[in-house]
Amino acid sequence: MTDDRLRAYARLLVHAGVNLAEGQELLVNGQIEHAPLVRAIAEEAYASGARFVDVSYGDRRVHRGLVEHADDDVLGWTPPWMVERIKRAADVGAAVIGISADSGAEIFEGLDEQRLARSRFRDFDRAWLDGVMGRKVAWTLVAYPTESWAIEAVGKPDVDALWDAVAHALRLDEPDPAAAWKVRLDELEARAQALTEHAFTALRYRGPGTDLEVGLIEGARWLAARERTINGQVHAPNLPTEEVFTSPHRLRAEGTVRSTMPLALHGTLVEDLELRLSGGEIVDVRASRGAEAVRTDIALDDGARRLGEVALVDASSRVGDTGVVFRNTLYDENAAAHIAWGSAIPWVIDDRPAEEHEAAGLNNSATHTDFMVGSPDVEIDGVEPGGATVPLLRDGVWQLA
Amino acid sequence: MTDDRLRAYARLLVHAGVNLAEGQELLVNGQIEHAPLVRAIAEEAYASGARFVDVSYGDRRVHRGLVEHADDDVLGWTPPWMVERIKRAADVGAAVIGISADSGAEIFEGLDEQRLARSRFRDFDRAWLDGVMGRKVAWTLVAYPTESWAIEAVGKPDVDALWDAVAHALRLDEPDPAAAWKVRLDELEARAQALTEHAFTALRYRGPGTDLEVGLIEGARWLAARERTINGQVHAPNLPTEEVFTSPHRLRAEGTVRSTMPLALHGTLVEDLELRLSGGEIVDVRASRGAEAVRTDIALDDGARRLGEVALVDASSRVGDTGVVFRNTLYDENAAAHIAWGSAIPWVIDDRPAEEHEAAGLNNSATHTDFMVGSPDVEIDGVEPGGATVPLLRDGVWQLA
Repeated sequence: MTDDRLRAYARLLVHAGVNLAEGQELLVNGQIEHAPLVRAIAEEAYASGARFVDVSYGDRRVHRGLVEHADDDVLGWTPPWMVERIKRAADVGAAVIGISADSGAEIFEGLDEQRLARSRFRDFDRAWLDGVMGRKVAWTLVAYPTESWAIEAVGKPDVDALWDAVAHALRLDEPDPAAAWKVRLDELEARAQALTEHAFTALRYRGPGTDLEVGLIEGARWLAARERTINGQVHAPNLPTEEVFTSPHRLRAEGTVRSTMPLALHGTLVEDLELRLSGGEIVDVRASRGAEAVRTDIALDDGARRLGEVALVDASSRVGDTGVVFRNTLYDENAAAHIAWGSAIPWVIDDRPAEEHEAAGLNNSATHTDFMVGSPDVEIDGVEPGGATVPLLRDGVWQLA
Repeated sequence: MTDDRLRAYARLLVHAGVNLAEGQELLVNGQIEHAPLVRAIAEEAYASGARFVDVSYGDRRVHRGLVEHADDDVLGWTPPWMVERIKRAADVGAAVIGISADSGAEIFEGLDEQRLARSRFRDFDRAWLDGVMGRKVAWTLVAYPTESWAIEAVGKPDVDALWDAVAHALRLDEPDPAAAWKVRLDELEARAQALTEHAFTALRYRGPGTDLEVGLIEGARWLAARERTINGQVHAPNLPTEEVFTSPHRLRAEGTVRSTMPLALHGTLVEDLELRLSGGEIVDVRASRGAEAVRTDIALDDGARRLGEVALVDASSRVGDTGVVFRNTLYDENAAAHIAWGSAIPWVIDDRPAEEHEAAGLNNSATHTDFMVGSPDVEIDGVEPGGATVPLLRDGVWQLA
């Protein structure tokens, strides 16, 4: 990895990512292993007029001690400063770059899965979701190649090999990455607009182990690529991003669905996940590994067992193009169509006041967990108001004009 | 460096250092380079019943960007969460282990000294001093051998050589380090008690470039080694510690004093420091390097240019015994007698109410900077109420029975 590539990555994140404004505060959240990227981001941000760059480094080897030893009532507790920090970011309209870690499977190996799942900082998660769902912060979630992620993604501690895949997915191998992203983001937004105009009432998934219909919210928009804060700041919440997505109706999902990729969930790697849904609710969870972590996550609150997002990704995805299973949700969700249980994205119906959201069918929860359901073997159709179906994905290829 | 040595160090800090209580919260403040020690501390603390271990990692390579680019009004600003975190620690009576960094001279090289000195987190410093001076937290300040510290202390990136010196100073080379520390801390406390009983009215320093008399506060105690929080928790504020100290009278210091070691001050290495004092005030600052950083520090507030501490260290110090100039105040101040400008230590007169402290002669400031004045060439005497002098240090050796 050359310093040039790191600088190019930082430049992409500060500008095409959060679109940092002169005088704006920037929060960066990462693990200590991410220090080279954090420092490159800070340098680029300060050189671009950031008022202050506030870095918070996590250390999961410290967190392991909490899971092993802490009293039951401390698991799930959040030090108040973490909440204050995020609330202030929302109040002042800061930008936030989050760097996602590898699954942590090695660090957390041998721990009680249920204690591990319960050990997350719940009040932090809630404050963060409030900031994001209230569109108060301009945020971008990214990842950074480390040795432990390379072991999970390419099977050996070959950081250069992982960097090559990541750089391709990030379009850092283009002469002008920001310009390449502008073209792609425009394409994805055109797809989202076409889906919105079709006004499908449901999506239908068919494939090995999967036969699922998910009802959509009447009048809800499909979104992609870019968001706009309540202050009007346009930003890219994920880099890379290859998806178009909306929030489904919380009461209408029926059938079974088999995940097509492993899922890294709060330190547990979940494999061969299968869910059965009825009346919009997840009523059965099976997995060859990690089922308990899923059961704990969907028991977090009333909305956790209902769906919050459906997303479509086709074979033109740069992430899918690498052929790598990254075992990192940010990347894998942009390689394949996916579904999330937990919180919905309220601004899919932002023409309606908040008090009508639940009645309209929007789900509410403190969790939001994506799992992959797409593959070349899975057909996805849109269902029109009259019941006719329109092919959306066949052999992984986008079908809608 | 073996893992055993790191574990022994962590054990010493958690028990002989902060004396962590079952169910107590522990804050650990360090740089990301200190992660191995931070993790060992967290493991030991959780295994010993810590309720929660809250780690905050700093990154001075990020801070460099602030000093280089930030607006004038942002230098000296503190993100509010940092203040909240320390205030809560004081409120709940937490333990705090702080890991001091190397001077930062390499990281901060080429920066404007005045901007660097102004870039500290002032509201954090104030909250921290409030917690310490109010004896609300059980704290221990320590250091951790890194490559950059080794370059400063032993002249090359030989971390093992630095570890050998540090381990000797920390008595980690004793079969039972905690027991060895108990003996030494008892010795130091006996010296402090003898000084208190002598009730000296002043100290007199004589040596090359030094001819100084510093008035003492009537009835003030000499302290050493261990402190007790308002909750009754006994802890060792510094490890290693070799000093006995008190706070002098803020209005009574006359003469000149030459520092006998380089001083690492907020990222600037100050060399050949000479001060002139009159009426208790520093009225002239000279140095071959870094004078501006000192002038900025003593201009911080009204009390910054007056003295807050005088401390005596003799040649039986394990730190001095290593022969290493550590270029780290925690270590160097325990190798030689020193003086601090800035805040006093209020509990030297804790028999008197706070509103009488200023009239008694205690200094008040948001800074507290130690500089070394002792060497075998510097004689230090105590002045008795009648004017007679009693030798305290000769050729670096303790004289008082």
